[in-house]
Amino acid sequence: MLSFSDGLFAISMTLLVVGISAPTLRVAGDEGEMIRALGRLIPEFVSFAVSFIVIGRYWLAHHRFFGLLRAVDSRLIAINLVYLAFIAFLPFPTELLGNYFDNPVSVALYAVTVAIVSTLEVVMFRHAHQGGLVRRGMPARVYRWGVLTSLSPVVFFLASVPVAFASVGVAVAMWFLFVPYGLLTARWKPAGADAYLS
Amino acid sequence: MLSFSDGLFAISMTLLVVGISAPTLRVAGDEGEMIRALGRLIPEFVSFAVSFIVIGRYWLAHHRFFGLLRAVDSRLIAINLVYLAFIAFLPFPTELLGNYFDNPVSVALYAVTVAIVSTLEVVMFRHAHQGGLVRRGMPARVYRWGVLTSLSPVVFFLASVPVAFASVGVAVAMWFLFVPYGLLTARWKPAGADAYLS
Amino acid sequence: MLSFSDGLFAISMTLLVVGISAPTLRVAGDEGEMIRALGRLIPEFVSFAVSFIVIGRYWLAHHRFFGLLRAVDSRLIAINLVYLAFIAFLPFPTELLGNYFDNPVSVALYAVTVAIVSTLEVVMFRHAHQGGLVRRGMPARVYRWGVLTSLSPVVFFLASVPVAFASVGVAVAMWFLFVPYGLLTARWKPAGADAYLS
Amino acid sequence: MLSFSDGLFAISMTLLVVGISAPTLRVAGDEGEMIRALGRLIPEFVSFAVSFIVIGRYWLAHHRFFGLLRAVDSRLIAINLVYLAFIAFLPFPTELLGNYFDNPVSVALYAVTVAIVSTLEVVMFRHAHQGGLVRRGMPARVYRWGVLTSLSPVVFFLASVPVAFASVGVAVAMWFLFVPYGLLTARWKPAGADAYLS
Repeated sequence: MLSFSDGLFAISMTLLVVGISAPTLRVAGDEGEMIRALGRLIPEFVSFAVSFIVIGRYWLAHHRFFGLLRAVDSRLIAINLVYLAFIAFLPFPTELLGNYFDNPVSVALYAVTVAIVSTLEVVMFRHAHQGGLVRRGMPARVYRWGVLTSLSPVVFFLASVPVAFASVGVAVAMWFLFVPYGLLTARWKPAGADAYLS
Repeated sequence: MLSFSDGLFAISMTLLVVGISAPTLRVAGDEGEMIRALGRLIPEFVSFAVSFIVIGRYWLAHHRFFGLLRAVDSRLIAINLVYLAFIAFLPFPTELLGNYFDNPVSVALYAVTVAIVSTLEVVMFRHAHQGGLVRRGMPARVYRWGVLTSLSPVVFFLASVPVAFASVGVAVAMWFLFVPYGLLTARWKPAGADAYLS
Repeated sequence: MLSFSDGLFAISMTLLVVGISAPTLRVAGDEGEMIRALGRLIPEFVSFAVSFIVIGRYWLAHHRFFGLLRAVDSRLIAINLVYLAFIAFLPFPTELLGNYFDNPVSVALYAVTVAIVSTLEVVMFRHAHQGGLVRRGMPARVYRWGVLTSLSPVVFFLASVPVAFASVGVAVAMWFLFVPYGLLTARWKPAGADAYLS
Repeated sequence: MLSFSDGLFAISMTLLVVGISAPTLRVAGDEGEMIRALGRLIPEFVSFAVSFIVIGRYWLAHHRFFGLLRAVDSRLIAINLVYLAFIAFLPFPTELLGNYFDNPVSVALYAVTVAIVSTLEVVMFRHAHQGGLVRRGMPARVYRWGVLTSLSPVVFFLASVPVAFASVGVAVAMWFLFVPYGLLTARWKPAGADAYLS
């Protein structure tokens, strides 16, 4: 299950580059035209980088989560399959965002997809905790802290959706708020949490 | 063999997204045009979701099947290779279905491909059972029940082919009949089957 | 090394489907037009199937070969990398063959690529044998037989190149001669070879 | 971590072939037109081959590097993710180079990307050495030699960037200088280095 998921993450991250379309120049050897064409691709490079980091972070969290489990039930497998479907889908909103960075709808679709992935992460975590699938009994405060950190991207990304229709730039900037927030929540980490969530 | 098959399943599922073509807008920032363009892509999103679930289910069944085996012979390897060829082919009927959801022929091609995959699954199961490749001697009633559950998608998908030429919607709806049917056959599961097929 | 090669084989085989281009219909729901469009894709389906089987056979042979080794040296790694480059390249001649099945040049490019892969297979086998990398000392007659079976595709595929310029159909038919030839060489298999090459 | 990275390398190397666009002939069966069309694709074949070797070499170095480690910290994981992002990005500059071999800008973008990958390799090596993540204490002279060999592509590729604007051919030729240089540095290898870097 884990190696299958790992493979799917790796492929999804590598497929992101397929969404970057090579420019078509009128004069093949024209340096200025190539530089301008690459300049117009900057939104596609940014989308690639953002998605690579986003999927990479989910992969890390997913890997740690499965490391916690002592067993897997058929329901967890089903939720995980739906979760992986949205990971495999992410190259599409990424390509849309790269092509139409200024369109609030592509920003919104991207944000909603990421929010769904994070929600499914919480659903899996909750199911594993309540179904007794976690290796050692996890203290309630560690569980609550884990849910909180998983839910934070949901909040930031969903909140960015209405903002996108006012200003695309501010909406995308909001996505990066989880970096300082992550440093903040790391301070609130309860004692003993490292044994479960590092 | 198993890790190779797992990799092929994971890649096939991730490649499905490549079939969803990013829309081309006349006005890059036009929100209404983007929403209408995404609306027209709904059949492609549905095809992606259906195929992801279908291939995901085959992966699960394949994984469990290989977990049953105590040995592998060259004939099983050959059948498995043909089986994997149809799994690797599935992104094509999926793309066709996404682009031409209303065309009975694309619905039929998809249904026939899935029926072939399920048939090959039964062929592999039968060969492993009769060739003594299954780890512990499998009781006849467990084997019959396993064949029955593997054959059910063949019946539902093949039966949908003529229906597609009358109504595409009804044909696709028939594919989802295997969900209640699966719950039904789960009740008929013979005692002791869990040790072989979970 | 082995899991890396396995992954590359699996991806190369799954990427073959990307070369099959979805048809563009004038009337989306037209059943007759779709059937004719799929009919024109038959060469692409045949190319997909041929390449899937060809790469699948190389994967099997590669897997068995690495199972024989007790050690790997830097030269074998270098030859293996060049070998894998031609495996990863095969989707291109496959796509060309699918699009231009009647063009002798696409048949020739495909045949030459396969012949190169088989030649590199023999080069790796020879290097491993002479460099003492094979697990147990392999008898000379087993080694000779192994080289013979690996070289046979080189002969059949290279011989098909000039034939393609007279008749494409005969050239492609020659590729399938290795099936009866394989059954023939299986009879010549020296005693004790099974321990090395199964 | 390692199997995930291995998968990403394998996919990135296999995706390179997707960048080679199948030619469109006016007369499908015309042999001369096909040969000329393939002739025009030679830069794309060369780019494919160069990138396959380049990524293959990075994969080997990455594999050896992770084999040295006794532990992994979160910072190394973060650097590795950025490193893998540039590996996953390489198919884009490869496609650009294949399409616009004569344009100095595509040569420059390729060279800069490779130089960044090599720099990140050195950064990871340095972090692992200073953070005590290397399995056995590595002698200072072995570490210095390792940094030197990792930095050499940075020098050759960055130096080729200004050269590309004078002559693209000379710039690309400079990339191959690391082959004789590699043989040269292999002579300087300090005693005992084989235990760490082979």
